[in-house]
Amino acid sequence: MQIQKIQSQFKTVALVGRSNTQGIGEPLMALAHTISQRGFDVVFEAHTAQEIGATGYPALQIAEIGARADVAVVLGGDGTMLGTGRQLAPYRTPLIGINHGRLGFITDIPFADMQEVVPQLLAGSFEREERSLLESRITRGGDPIYHALAFNDVVVNRSGVSGMAELRVHVDGRFMYNQRSDGLIVATPTGSTAYSLSSQGPLLHPQLQGIVLVPIAPHALSNRPIVLPDDCKVSIQIIAGRDVNVNFDMQSFTALELNDVIEVRRSRHTVPFLHPVGYSYFRTLRQKLHWNEHPSLQDDPED
Amino acid sequence: MQIQKIQSQFKTVALVGRSNTQGIGEPLMALAHTISQRGFDVVFEAHTAQEIGATGYPALQIAEIGARADVAVVLGGDGTMLGTGRQLAPYRTPLIGINHGRLGFITDIPFADMQEVVPQLLAGSFEREERSLLESRITRGGDPIYHALAFNDVVVNRSGVSGMAELRVHVDGRFMYNQRSDGLIVATPTGSTAYSLSSQGPLLHPQLQGIVLVPIAPHALSNRPIVLPDDCKVSIQIIAGRDVNVNFDMQSFTALELNDVIEVRRSRHTVPFLHPVGYSYFRTLRQKLHWNEHPSLQDDPED
Amino acid sequence: MQIQKIQSQFKTVALVGRSNTQGIGEPLMALAHTISQRGFDVVFEAHTAQEIGATGYPALQIAEIGARADVAVVLGGDGTMLGTGRQLAPYRTPLIGINHGRLGFITDIPFADMQEVVPQLLAGSFEREERSLLESRITRGGDPIYHALAFNDVVVNRSGVSGMAELRVHVDGRFMYNQRSDGLIVATPTGSTAYSLSSQGPLLHPQLQGIVLVPIAPHALSNRPIVLPDDCKVSIQIIAGRDVNVNFDMQSFTALELNDVIEVRRSRHTVPFLHPVGYSYFRTLRQKLHWNEHPSLQDDPED
Amino acid sequence: MQIQKIQSQFKTVALVGRSNTQGIGEPLMALAHTISQRGFDVVFEAHTAQEIGATGYPALQIAEIGARADVAVVLGGDGTMLGTGRQLAPYRTPLIGINHGRLGFITDIPFADMQEVVPQLLAGSFEREERSLLESRITRGGDPIYHALAFNDVVVNRSGVSGMAELRVHVDGRFMYNQRSDGLIVATPTGSTAYSLSSQGPLLHPQLQGIVLVPIAPHALSNRPIVLPDDCKVSIQIIAGRDVNVNFDMQSFTALELNDVIEVRRSRHTVPFLHPVGYSYFRTLRQKLHWNEHPSLQDDPED
Repeated sequence: MQIQKIQSQFKTVALVGRSNTQGIGEPLMALAHTISQRGFDVVFEAHTAQEIGATGYPALQIAEIGARADVAVVLGGDGTMLGTGRQLAPYRTPLIGINHGRLGFITDIPFADMQEVVPQLLAGSFEREERSLLESRITRGGDPIYHALAFNDVVVNRSGVSGMAELRVHVDGRFMYNQRSDGLIVATPTGSTAYSLSSQGPLLHPQLQGIVLVPIAPHALSNRPIVLPDDCKVSIQIIAGRDVNVNFDMQSFTALELNDVIEVRRSRHTVPFLHPVGYSYFRTLRQKLHWNEHPSLQDDPED
Repeated sequence: MQIQKIQSQFKTVALVGRSNTQGIGEPLMALAHTISQRGFDVVFEAHTAQEIGATGYPALQIAEIGARADVAVVLGGDGTMLGTGRQLAPYRTPLIGINHGRLGFITDIPFADMQEVVPQLLAGSFEREERSLLESRITRGGDPIYHALAFNDVVVNRSGVSGMAELRVHVDGRFMYNQRSDGLIVATPTGSTAYSLSSQGPLLHPQLQGIVLVPIAPHALSNRPIVLPDDCKVSIQIIAGRDVNVNFDMQSFTALELNDVIEVRRSRHTVPFLHPVGYSYFRTLRQKLHWNEHPSLQDDPED
Repeated sequence: MQIQKIQSQFKTVALVGRSNTQGIGEPLMALAHTISQRGFDVVFEAHTAQEIGATGYPALQIAEIGARADVAVVLGGDGTMLGTGRQLAPYRTPLIGINHGRLGFITDIPFADMQEVVPQLLAGSFEREERSLLESRITRGGDPIYHALAFNDVVVNRSGVSGMAELRVHVDGRFMYNQRSDGLIVATPTGSTAYSLSSQGPLLHPQLQGIVLVPIAPHALSNRPIVLPDDCKVSIQIIAGRDVNVNFDMQSFTALELNDVIEVRRSRHTVPFLHPVGYSYFRTLRQKLHWNEHPSLQDDPED
Repeated sequence: MQIQKIQSQFKTVALVGRSNTQGIGEPLMALAHTISQRGFDVVFEAHTAQEIGATGYPALQIAEIGARADVAVVLGGDGTMLGTGRQLAPYRTPLIGINHGRLGFITDIPFADMQEVVPQLLAGSFEREERSLLESRITRGGDPIYHALAFNDVVVNRSGVSGMAELRVHVDGRFMYNQRSDGLIVATPTGSTAYSLSSQGPLLHPQLQGIVLVPIAPHALSNRPIVLPDDCKVSIQIIAGRDVNVNFDMQSFTALELNDVIEVRRSRHTVPFLHPVGYSYFRTLRQKLHWNEHPSLQDDPED
């Protein structure tokens, strides 16, 4: 029997797997074979190719993937997805996420279903969603010393063993507040289900053009998260505190000094996610976060 | 000495006062006189004219004010401002708010300053801000039975003496959740500092194109507010509960029956607010809500 | 085969069923038969007897049950348990709760297990736990006008359609605060998993000698629940607000007037609950409230 | 004029000042002189004596103070008070706190008033309040490796730059939950106004015989603080997480390893605080924490 070629808007498909992960080599190779048979050009991300010993397909650096691939299939946890997304953001390469992690909030296709579902998406059966990113620049004495993108959040945080931090926050050049706390989270809608949520932040729908500022263990009883339009510029200055650092998606870190300024604004890049048809953000909230879960209610009468 | 006429984009100025309020007649007449001398045509809202015995100026119904006035000065509390704003929304008449109420969150000019500040605003020294409204339609058995605008919020609420309500919520036709609670608040950014805030909702910046859904006394531990883009349509169906009603800005009420549906979407109208130059939304949050207040910090180093 | 008599500290066992409930007659009669065979004297609560047509056993009013029974088996939801408990409190009759309701937080024996488990408890295999109650007295112009016991909570609440209430609260004659809100909850540890929890109150362990005061939709950002020793006297005066009422376990209601005072103190009565051996309050929190539930964790490694 | 001797239950008064603090030498010497003239034996804590160059009074180590002094006057911030209290706890020496710090929540006598107020307290005009402490023991592989007292809290915390911790918590040998979070706070009533409050914990009245467990940035939406009787034993095991440490009143720290167990129970010691007559815990909450603060309310009609 002959496998039928798929007519598709995509031609080249990149496969990216999480590092140091047992048991993903064979499934990835099977997926590569399936996709290839359907008429797509398959390429592997270079580290993935090396780790799983993928042969017979080109192995490309991420930048080359950005330049050459039309879509990237990412197998791993949300961390792998965030990391790949940040790197591919300048190329607007759409991402398909396969969950091989713990929670799999943004990698929404179950590992067990990928051989069946990925070809459907590649054939055009998908819902496309643009996710925004943050761009952050750190200045010391007015000079830029660090620059990073963040998918989830920019988190300014004292380390565990020292006292409180004091942060002075401006929005579009206007003073917002001086805050004494363990730190401050600036989160995108994507990040609103991550660390922000643990610190009592609200959920932001992915299509909301907003960011949320959530204090971590604020000193003032009267603190409360604030949601700002995502075209504003947030500027956070370290006024007091020892061992204060900033991280981006919990993946890159920089130690800060007094008077350092962290500027955060929306990146001009967005990252397209491709979801299976029928994808429901709300169902993901209910099923993976147990959002609004009642013991005795049928929560999903229609899903 | 001759009072100098003001060159202005505005020609006709309406004055609106809160009903049944002692001590506002004389200040309003003084303001009318001042403004009039500067070359503006002054009109009074009809009830206000009658209550304070204003003579010498036209007394107009709100609809006529909408048609003829270029700007309305509202003297009262936030309730007066909300009520006037809802009525003038179709006419896009800008509002200037004078605080003669308790909190005066959106009526931001102090009563004592109005004789001095209002002419400055009329002369063009203002910051203009568009505030969004909600439009709500209630259907029973598919038939529309009620329609209302809301500046702050649409609140579905059981009355105090009965048990819990169960609400089924869809967003753009997609099931979001079944919620057991005392009720649900749908709030605009303007409303995010009102009842929503008391129910643990986040602050939404006025320029955010979003609305927030905040449960009232939710049964589930895992509930959390969600901020949605304001171009979506929220639909709330009453599944269970006795004595459930809906109110709009706490000012108009309707009793609901089982299976009634409340649809909420952004109104196509917005209401322009005119603030004195230098107005800071964040300062208002700090000063009037004691937001993020610390005992020992200089919160406003620059304001 | 002969059924073996049980040697027990109990002699007379009362059976109480929830009113207007389908399908509990036969199981209750079967339970009565089982217990009776084991040598206990079985009596029925009078309404229960009438509703299910129980014959062959004495039918007693609650007060007689208090006087004559050594233990009461209550079949229903938590509401039935609370109501029966309040009535039997003066007699210190221990309660065994069978869950035939929705949540069954305090009625902890599953309906399906009762024929097996209840005889075990009657035979002495149980863990005994004392639950405290509140006693509340309402005075108007200094005169007492109402008196009630509460198992869960005393809730002062405005009704849904009016504005905010203002409550002045004293503790042991010392001013605590003036609070503007929708209302105030005074809850026992038992009540800390009920309405208090929906209003963001903390969990109180049943053995804690404390009560918690939780504001409902407080106006101030800086509010926070407070836990007080349960030997203090809380006094709540209605300073402002329309249609304010007070309820006790959501089961009895009284309308309040301005300046009415609601006094709340611990009742001198406690109600003993008998749980199956191995009962874990924490497991109940996890299983029935989904407390601290993670998607991917084995929460109960040892239970 | 002759200074009148005070008849008092106290004979020897110890003076303790915060280290490295400008401007407290002269006031402390003046206080020593005043007290001494009234007939008390004044002793200085040794470091304090050295730092301020106190001569003419005995300089004692803390342990000697515990053995010989009847009361200790502590000048500094809450940190000084906590540190002194922990050291004097075994001796039950009552403490009088003078606020020379930022917040001064438990050091309740203003610095400016001390020359006048301290002699009044020494003369017997005081309200005595017992504050409880926690005793904590850390075991590694079953062997005790650390032991500490805490006045406020025992805080298990990951450091800022690593991922989430997983903690397994038992209470009196019974499994409570596995929690994924940044950490867990076990706080006394005294500590309920400290770090616990920043992490959304409830207020516990000083007389409550309870402790509260408050998660720090919990992963689960459905987490909630729990208040336990203070005679229970809490045991926290480190299941996962890098760079987890534990601190006691934020003043002593220990790095933890996987499987380490932190046991926490009430200390058999309590520390007596002496407050000026008319002291109100609730007023302190309102004034120093802005608890329940409203913009337009007279919060203290009677205080």
